[in-house]
This record gives sequence, structure tokens and C-alpha cells, in this order.
Amino acid sequence: MSMSNPLQYNVLVGQSGGPTAVINSSLYGIITASHKNKRSISHVYGMIHGIEGFLEGHYMNLTDELDETDLELLKNTPAAYLGSCRYKLSENLSDKIYPILFQKFNELNIRYFLYIGGNDSMDTVSKLSLYSEKINSNIRIIGIPKTIDNDLVNTDHTPGFGSAAKYISSTVREIALDSSVYHNKSVTIVELMGRHAGWITAASVLARKYAKDNPVLVYLPEVPFDMEKFANDIKTEFTKKNNLVVCVSEGIRDVNGTFICEYGNDVKTDNFGHKMLTGCGKILENFVRDQFGIKVRSVEINISQRCSGIITSLTDINEAAMAGYYGIETALKGMSGQMIALNRLSSTPYKVECKPVDVTQVCNKEKPFPSEWITCDGTNIRKEFLEYIIPLIQGEPEIKMENGLPLYCYRK
Amino acid sequence: MSMSNPLQYNVLVGQSGGPTAVINSSLYGIITASHKNKRSISHVYGMIHGIEGFLEGHYMNLTDELDETDLELLKNTPAAYLGSCRYKLSENLSDKIYPILFQKFNELNIRYFLYIGGNDSMDTVSKLSLYSEKINSNIRIIGIPKTIDNDLVNTDHTPGFGSAAKYISSTVREIALDSSVYHNKSVTIVELMGRHAGWITAASVLARKYAKDNPVLVYLPEVPFDMEKFANDIKTEFTKKNNLVVCVSEGIRDVNGTFICEYGNDVKTDNFGHKMLTGCGKILENFVRDQFGIKVRSVEINISQRCSGIITSLTDINEAAMAGYYGIETALKGMSGQMIALNRLSSTPYKVECKPVDVTQVCNKEKPFPSEWITCDGTNIRKEFLEYIIPLIQGEPEIKMENGLPLYCYRK
Repeated sequence: MSMSNPLQYNVLVGQSGGPTAVINSSLYGIITASHKNKRSISHVYGMIHGIEGFLEGHYMNLTDELDETDLELLKNTPAAYLGSCRYKLSENLSDKIYPILFQKFNELNIRYFLYIGGNDSMDTVSKLSLYSEKINSNIRIIGIPKTIDNDLVNTDHTPGFGSAAKYISSTVREIALDSSVYHNKSVTIVELMGRHAGWITAASVLARKYAKDNPVLVYLPEVPFDMEKFANDIKTEFTKKNNLVVCVSEGIRDVNGTFICEYGNDVKTDNFGHKMLTGCGKILENFVRDQFGIKVRSVEINISQRCSGIITSLTDINEAAMAGYYGIETALKGMSGQMIALNRLSSTPYKVECKPVDVTQVCNKEKPFPSEWITCDGTNIRKEFLEYIIPLIQGEPEIKMENGLPLYCYRK
Repeated sequence: MSMSNPLQYNVLVGQSGGPTAVINSSLYGIITASHKNKRSISHVYGMIHGIEGFLEGHYMNLTDELDETDLELLKNTPAAYLGSCRYKLSENLSDKIYPILFQKFNELNIRYFLYIGGNDSMDTVSKLSLYSEKINSNIRIIGIPKTIDNDLVNTDHTPGFGSAAKYISSTVREIALDSSVYHNKSVTIVELMGRHAGWITAASVLARKYAKDNPVLVYLPEVPFDMEKFANDIKTEFTKKNNLVVCVSEGIRDVNGTFICEYGNDVKTDNFGHKMLTGCGKILENFVRDQFGIKVRSVEINISQRCSGIITSLTDINEAAMAGYYGIETALKGMSGQMIALNRLSSTPYKVECKPVDVTQVCNKEKPFPSEWITCDGTNIRKEFLEYIIPLIQGEPEIKMENGLPLYCYRK
């Protein structure tokens, strides 16, 4: 460690949970804010693989190891530069894990710990800040939200959602073009992420180039799914159009709460006798083929919707960086146990500010897609949602290319 | 029809087979070349849904219906603007379909017919030009190649391949970042298009940011696939790295010629008793999970690899447009029964020219991935391929955005 001013402390940052396109943009914000506050902050350390890796002694010195060029690349690099983990801290604040962690914090002269993540990570922030308070430590713990699922409460939206929405709606728009090239009747089912909340699937309606365009039907987990009604919905749409695109959340369930993706899992085994896990898209594909005897495809967008850097929202990137930046400023003010929320001041013109919110009021809660934004028949999204989401997908970053491909920042 | 100069004739153009990112760029080239040759060409007509739709009377007047703005959008719009078909003309040139088609050509005062497509479409071009010759017609028939599969002979490469390669390698690079965020051992299997030829899957090695980076293993249809060897390959790679990305062609087969994707299909049914079709990626995912007991995912890139406009190769777009342009010039010279091939003059610097080749020598043939570009163990690609492919993915078009999403041209 370099010689440090006695009034200077270090920052520790970790990334946790599933990747997004902008989790590194928040890291960028934290690093740049720290470097701008040199009188208070000496170094920024990064946990490798979150709390879990840190407990095993894995961390890096971000201040010394990343130069300006790396930092600019980092801002537009998807996935988690520092690596991630899914690690749940003990509910019991007397557990020995807490003094172990805080001893490690002290060894690195950490005063500010920022954790970038979703729901579970906010749980970690909550527990660590409660423990810090309990032992009268000066260590400030701040959460920076990220999740493509947009399901955190007390924030207008979460960094990561805008880019995922933009990737998904662009991709569905292209799939709709592709699915319309043949004259014959066809159904293309697009399965999107969202086990519990339908925000991402709702975003697919942005793909429409004009009213009544594809996707013509949209099914979210918030509305119980019924196979028979689904068949009728398809039938009705076929009276208007030959090539249908249908978007569904992976987490759609029937009225009994059974996931549609579970409909097939008890019977499917491969040649080796192994159980095959199938998404709901495949189940619906089969169902439609049987009911209508037409060409059906299912497309699972899969992990690209959370880790693509090809098309991202500059608004999202800037807000993720801003949340990281503001996280440092909030910590420097002496606050702890806060998540940096995004507070929308207006939609036209779009204006947003960062605001610390009590993390104990955020963690372990979920914000479903609002039922008042779903049409009565449960297959479409109301225009109020468009007013909400359109500002979040605006703008594109300049992507640095090398030899024809996007250049990304990675741990050597 | 507008009044026309007696020396002027019309152009007819159709699109056929699966979409690509640049099939519309060729259409753009054909239209602009036609408009530049106003002394010989009056109007450009477009078949709607290829030969099949045209036979049913569906066509449009591209000269009158597309303005400058539409044309510029068209150049960067993926999928097939005119719609497509999969229609095989009779082998028998005495079949009544031929005089019917030529009568329709004559009714529209068509002198030049250009068909943009792959192998099967070149078969159509071949038959129509033979028929035209047989009846001593003045109608010139020209084929413009397109296929992401890059499997046409007598051309260095095909329009569509470069953009697909660029999309795939960018996406695999991002999937590799995503797959490396957790510390625990994992395998991510990426299934790519290519039923018979491995060009697209080979392109995934461009995703590597450094030597030995993911994808660590690449399996093409050209090399017989063996499950046991596959398990050993994985085992070996795990001695070097924790998170493995493996790219496979959908068309990999075992030594007996059985597709790996068929390994599971006889036993899988869903709750409704329907047979479930599964890709080879899912089969391999299951196999690896069983063999290694670790986290395994499979990702099927699916149709986005052929229809994404988010990331395309400007080189590919320009070459596709150039082939269309040159197709008109070739037809105006009185040639017929030709496919416009791309002839590489040099790789460094990259130089390519258009060249007409006898379409009868192209259709119904396939160009496999060269075995000398595959390493001896069948799991990697030699650097000669990189020299071949890198020029094909260079440059990016300026994508016109509207309200945060790519703006595309479509038939109203």
C-alpha cells in the first residue's frame, strides 16, 4: 500500500448478482468520484467475485491498476468486471462472519464500502450497515442498484433496465421483420427474462413500428396464464395478420401458480435418461403447432439481454455512472445503510436525480409490473408505460471498435 | 404503368430463401443502378414473396414507391423487404410454369430479372436462364448471392456472411464475459447456425480477446462429433480455466452421420404428448451436466444471427450493394445465367471485385469449411481463416435511430 494521508481512507467496491450492460458503468462512477475526492479518499479497492471472493482474500487495487483508457472502456463494458457472486450473509448479526469481514475492511483502511447489485445485494448492504452501527464502526455502507429486472422498490427504475429494454425491443423488432418474410401463417414465440416481474417483457412492445405491429401479444408473470385463452388469442390475431410474434416472460404461471415451463419437465428425458429443462417458449411452441398445424418457432433471447454491449442506452449508462458517483458523495457525507435511488422529476423533459433511500426498505421486496398498465385482456401494455420507459432507452454510447469488434475492458 | 421510351425496359427483382442482414443492401444496389441507367431502364418492379408471390400476381413498383429516404434506410434494413419464399421450379423445362412466368415478365415489359438468394435461388436462376435461352427470349436472368452460411462455390465469400460473423463474434465475446463472472466452474454451450457448413461457427473464434480466451472449443459439422472425446476435451480445458465457452454448429453429426440434435428427439414429449424438437446445444448441456456435475448453460443464438441490424459489417453491406449494382450492369451487357461472384484480389490490403460466374456451376453445390483450416484435434480453427475473415467484418454503417431504436424500412 502506498503512503497515505492520515485523513484519507480507502473505498472498497464489489459487484454481486447477475451481470447487466451497465454494472461496470456504476463501477466507473465510483472510481471517478473517488479520484475526484483525493483529500478524503486514497485508493479504490475492488472485491474479486464479491463478498465471497473477498472473504477468500481476492481483491484488486483499481486506482493503480486501471488507467484512463481502461476506465473509459470500462464505462461501456457489459457484464461484471470484478466478477460476481451469489452469497447470502447470515441473518444473525452475531455470526462470526461479520467481525471477520470488518477486520478485513480495517486491514485495508476501508471507510466506504459500496456494493453494486440487486435485491439480494441490498440485503447484504442492509446487514453490513446494521452490523456497522451495532459495533459503532465508522465504516459507511452504500448500495448501488442494478438489475435488468427493474423490480427494486423505492426507485423510479434500476440501472440496467434501460439497456436491456433497448436490446430486447431492437431484437424483437428484427425478429418481427424476419418472421414476416414468408407469406404462410406463422407464430414466433419470444421468451424473455423475468421470473417474477414482467418489466422486460413489457418493454418488447417498443418493437412496434406502427400500431397493431408485432409483437401482437405480450404475456407477463403478473397475469395468470391460461392455455385455452392463449389459443383463442392467437386465433383472433390470425384474423388480422399472417405472421404473429408473441412475447412471453419466462416466469408466466397458470392460475394455480404452476410455471408454464414446468408443464414439460416431468416427461422429457434425453437418450441418456437425463431430465431436460425447457423454457416456457418451447412448451408454447409445441402447443401452438399442435393446435394450429402451422409453422411455429420459439426464440429464447437468453443471456444476451443482460450482457449485450452492442446496443445500450446512453441514458442508462450515464445514470448508472451517476448512481456510483453519488454513492461516493453520500458515503463521504457520513451516511450509511442507503441505496442510491433514481428519482424521476419529470418525464417531458426527462429529468432524474439521485436520492439515498433506506436500504432496509428496499431489500427483500419486489416491485411487480403495475396491473393498471396491463390491458384488461392481459395481452397488451397501456401507453402510460411507454411514457415511463421511452426516456430510459434514449441515446447510444460511442463504442470503441478494434478489428471490427467491440473492445471491452477485462481483468488480465 | 407510366409511358415509357421504346428502348427502355423494366427490371424485376425478387428475394428468396432465409433473410440476412444485407439482402436489402443488394436490393438497394439493384434499384440505384437501375435508376442510374435511365436510358435503358424505366422501372424496377419487386416480386412480393419471390417467384411464388409473383405467380399469384404480387409485385410492387419500387421506382415509384420508394423515395430517397426509404432507399437509404433500405440499405441498412435487415431481413427481406420484398418478402421471401422457398419455391422450387420444375426440373422439366417443358413444364407449363415457364411460359406462365415469361408471359408475366412480358406483360410488365421485363428485360432483366435479378434474383437475390442462396443455393436454391441460384437453381431458379439457372432454370430460368436455360428456359430463356431455349425460347430465344431477350430476357436476362442474373443471380445475386446471399447467405449467412457462406457455402456457395465459385465466390470468395457471400454477402451476409460478414455481418453474421460480426454479430456472432461480438455476441460470443459478450457471452464469454457474462459466463466468467462467477468463480465456480461452468460450461456455456453456444449453438450456432450451420446445418452442413461450419463457416459461421468458425467465425466465433474472432470473439477471443487474447490467445486461449473463450471460446476454447469449436465444433463444426465438417468433423465427426464424438461425445466421449467431447467430455475429454472439456476435462482438458478445465485444467486451464474455470469458465468454458464452447461453440457448436447446429449440424454437428457423429461418425455415423446422425445429427447430435437427433439424440434426444425420440424420447421427448411434453404434457400434451407432443414430440419436442431440441437443438444439439441442449443435448450437450445435459451431457456435460451429467458428466461433470457443474453449472452448464446452453444458448441458441437463433434467428438474430441472420437478421440483426444492430451490429453489421459495412464491408458486407457495401459488397452486397455492389453485387446488386454490378448485376444490373452485367444484365445490361446482355449477359444471362450468371451469378455475381465476389473475387478477392488481395487480403492486405483487402481488395475485392465483382465477377460474373456461370450459375449452373454454382447451384446445387456446397462449399464446406476447408479441412486444412481446422486443427488436427478438430476443436479449433487455424490462423489462415482469420486472415480470410477479418477483412469481411470491418466497418460499421451509421444506423438511423428514432426514439431510441433502429429505424428500418418496411412494406406498408
